[in-house]
Amino acid sequence: MKQKGENKFIKWARFLKQQQNKKLLYCLERASPIEVANFLEQQPIESILRILAMLPITRQGELFALFKDSALQIAFYEQLSKGTFAKLFSCMPSDLRVDFYQRLPSKEQTHLLPYLSRKVREDVLMLNSYSPDTAGGIMHTDFATVLNFMNIEEALAKIREDAPTQKMLYYIYVVNEHMKLVGFIPLEQLVLCTPQTKISSILDTNFVYATVDEDQEVVARKIEQYNLAVIPILNQENQIVGIVSYDDAIEIIRAEQVEDMDKFMGIDSEEDDPDYLKISSVQHLKKRVKWAVGVFMSGIVSHYFTHTKFSSQDFIPYLFYVGMIADTGGNVGSQAASVVLQALNRGQVTLSDWIKIIAKELKVSILLASILFFLVYVKIYIMPSEHRTLQMTFIIALSIVLQVICSTIIGASLPLAAKYFNGDPAVAASPAINTIVELVGLLIYYAAIMVISWLYPINQVNTS
Amino acid sequence: MKQKGENKFIKWARFLKQQQNKKLLYCLERASPIEVANFLEQQPIESILRILAMLPITRQGELFALFKDSALQIAFYEQLSKGTFAKLFSCMPSDLRVDFYQRLPSKEQTHLLPYLSRKVREDVLMLNSYSPDTAGGIMHTDFATVLNFMNIEEALAKIREDAPTQKMLYYIYVVNEHMKLVGFIPLEQLVLCTPQTKISSILDTNFVYATVDEDQEVVARKIEQYNLAVIPILNQENQIVGIVSYDDAIEIIRAEQVEDMDKFMGIDSEEDDPDYLKISSVQHLKKRVKWAVGVFMSGIVSHYFTHTKFSSQDFIPYLFYVGMIADTGGNVGSQAASVVLQALNRGQVTLSDWIKIIAKELKVSILLASILFFLVYVKIYIMPSEHRTLQMTFIIALSIVLQVICSTIIGASLPLAAKYFNGDPAVAASPAINTIVELVGLLIYYAAIMVISWLYPINQVNTS
Repeated sequence: MKQKGENKFIKWARFLKQQQNKKLLYCLERASPIEVANFLEQQPIESILRILAMLPITRQGELFALFKDSALQIAFYEQLSKGTFAKLFSCMPSDLRVDFYQRLPSKEQTHLLPYLSRKVREDVLMLNSYSPDTAGGIMHTDFATVLNFMNIEEALAKIREDAPTQKMLYYIYVVNEHMKLVGFIPLEQLVLCTPQTKISSILDTNFVYATVDEDQEVVARKIEQYNLAVIPILNQENQIVGIVSYDDAIEIIRAEQVEDMDKFMGIDSEEDDPDYLKISSVQHLKKRVKWAVGVFMSGIVSHYFTHTKFSSQDFIPYLFYVGMIADTGGNVGSQAASVVLQALNRGQVTLSDWIKIIAKELKVSILLASILFFLVYVKIYIMPSEHRTLQMTFIIALSIVLQVICSTIIGASLPLAAKYFNGDPAVAASPAINTIVELVGLLIYYAAIMVISWLYPINQVNTS
Repeated sequence: MKQKGENKFIKWARFLKQQQNKKLLYCLERASPIEVANFLEQQPIESILRILAMLPITRQGELFALFKDSALQIAFYEQLSKGTFAKLFSCMPSDLRVDFYQRLPSKEQTHLLPYLSRKVREDVLMLNSYSPDTAGGIMHTDFATVLNFMNIEEALAKIREDAPTQKMLYYIYVVNEHMKLVGFIPLEQLVLCTPQTKISSILDTNFVYATVDEDQEVVARKIEQYNLAVIPILNQENQIVGIVSYDDAIEIIRAEQVEDMDKFMGIDSEEDDPDYLKISSVQHLKKRVKWAVGVFMSGIVSHYFTHTKFSSQDFIPYLFYVGMIADTGGNVGSQAASVVLQALNRGQVTLSDWIKIIAKELKVSILLASILFFLVYVKIYIMPSEHRTLQMTFIIALSIVLQVICSTIIGASLPLAAKYFNGDPAVAASPAINTIVELVGLLIYYAAIMVISWLYPINQVNTS
């Protein structure tokens, strides 16, 4: 597929270079809009202007909306007169149109509005009023409604009049005279029933919907959970004001995935970040520097702490095991956090299950700790050392057990705590967990050394 | 939504307990199939049998297919006679039907086949022949085809005869007399054109497709990339043999997300893992123990290595900084791996961009290293210590610089290397990177101490 796409692009570029406009147009009209948009984006802006001018205005709007590079969109906008651009703008899908509108400087927004038809202007201003992360902020308004007292023939006439785009036509929404949604009809019902059938007799009134102020991730999850092609978006009066479709849901799920992974690795990310190679090195640095420096500083602090507390000669053999205890804790803590985070994300568990979650993690960590306790003894047996005594071995093994259990519980609790305080559970990032459990591990280790050495005098460590 | 669903369930459970069958049926017939299936799964098997027996057979098949708990499905299967089950089985969606068939023991498979109609049997055996991760393994066969010489009226009659399910009807596939796919018509065209319109005149021949043996993730990416509701699946003769729809794509993308995150955190995962709380503690342990023990062992080994090499009294002050160098390297390495992995996953970069990627990461790491170099000096200035000399400060700062650069490059290279050897780039897991860069960090630190101490005699470390 990829290969094929690239060969096409080479052919089109040749036509473009040789000014073979007819051949180029023939190809572009038959190709998928996404491929054409990808091809155009790679061309200089003069060529884009020249090619688009040859296409019908509806196609121009569709292609312009598909450009991924928002800097290119703005540059294109600046090349055209406001009147010409307004025509193209009116042909963009309503959700992408308002996205572009929001990227314009506010002065340009004001300049563009008078050139728009009343219908388009009102649509843009309505969609612009919703917060970008909500159902209202991502919905589009290209949907068809029919009234509940119509028959199929009248409904089809109404749909033709609404001049629908392809996206909206999976379900036909049925409203009453106050525009309140009363049900829906899958499109194939319109195809398969006779023209005289009453809409009210085939109406499905059990519909899933979202409200304008719901979070976009909740909307995507409803589409996923109920296998919907399109979900209707209602305002406070239960009137249908827009729709969100499966392809928006895919985009949200994909973005959420990147966002969660980034957060988990302590990387700042923005939803509209450009492609990896297009981000400058300084931008990349800004996204990562926070935790890179954080971990470095916490490393200094925790090892400074080691330094002062463990400064006695007697403790030096113990120093060699600090890293192992910290590493193991960091790893099991991050694993626990990752598992709980994903169970929350997929809706497998909710906050109210916290006791069950902690109980499960406690069991898992006790099993794991037992294995590692055993391994400490095996290791001592295989690799004896002058420094090590039975007492020291016990202290290390005990510390590992406590560290694994504490780290697992801390790792599992952090996403739950973040969720409880209405935060995103993914903020319980891996570097944060590593840092916390490292300090906890040091305290455990130090306490274990103190307590065991107090029960049995310390000088046993250096004898035998 | 959730709250509402739970209230519903309480009401239904009351009707069930009070044997108010009519009221229960009335509710269940009006609810979404997914809600009903979720409700039934929480009931004892006798109640499920009793409720399903009251519903039409098509609904039974649909609900049975939606059960998430495959153990429950098998238990249900065992309660029914083969003949009764075969009827329900025939009403399941074809993709979920073959999934269930594959979970049956092979003896049961053989026993069930004779009870099936020839059409269903052939469908099951055909779908069963494809590997589960391919387009063939996830596709379903409930699609409608029309012939290219028909007009709209004839096409509609053919579609009614094919008795389509809702899923398939977003696009109508047009084939020639050899069942080869020649194009498609969006369903709304059938609605909006006159009955006498020739199919060939409105046919869109520029279609995106997948072949039966393509990987399921590639299929999902095509659906995502081209905003398709449904993608046709072709065999080697370009005949259409099935379709994959947007909801399958969402499921694949979601599963891929979990799989990648798990791999990245060093957790073994299976595609059909049950929900978090349903997995036993021993199973959870099995999924995580590999890397938990791995990190623990590598911790022992690397600190044992520290122990032997740094055993001289002169080196003891340096020991306090081993952890900081390891931690910082682990964090920046994991961040780099995560960023490159996601850019690969989203198709923003390919393997051929490796030089650009490494160059970008090199720049980022040099910037980051410069900041940390500076911070080491600030730290020394703020927190002076008896052990530390200018020479030691320089050794630590130099080691941090080299460690950050090496770790970033290692972290960025591992997903690329995995991809190059046709592996999954997500196997470049965070615990593996932590372990590798920890060893690298120790080597760098040790080498820095040796070289600098050789250039300037070692006793300077303990004087001044």
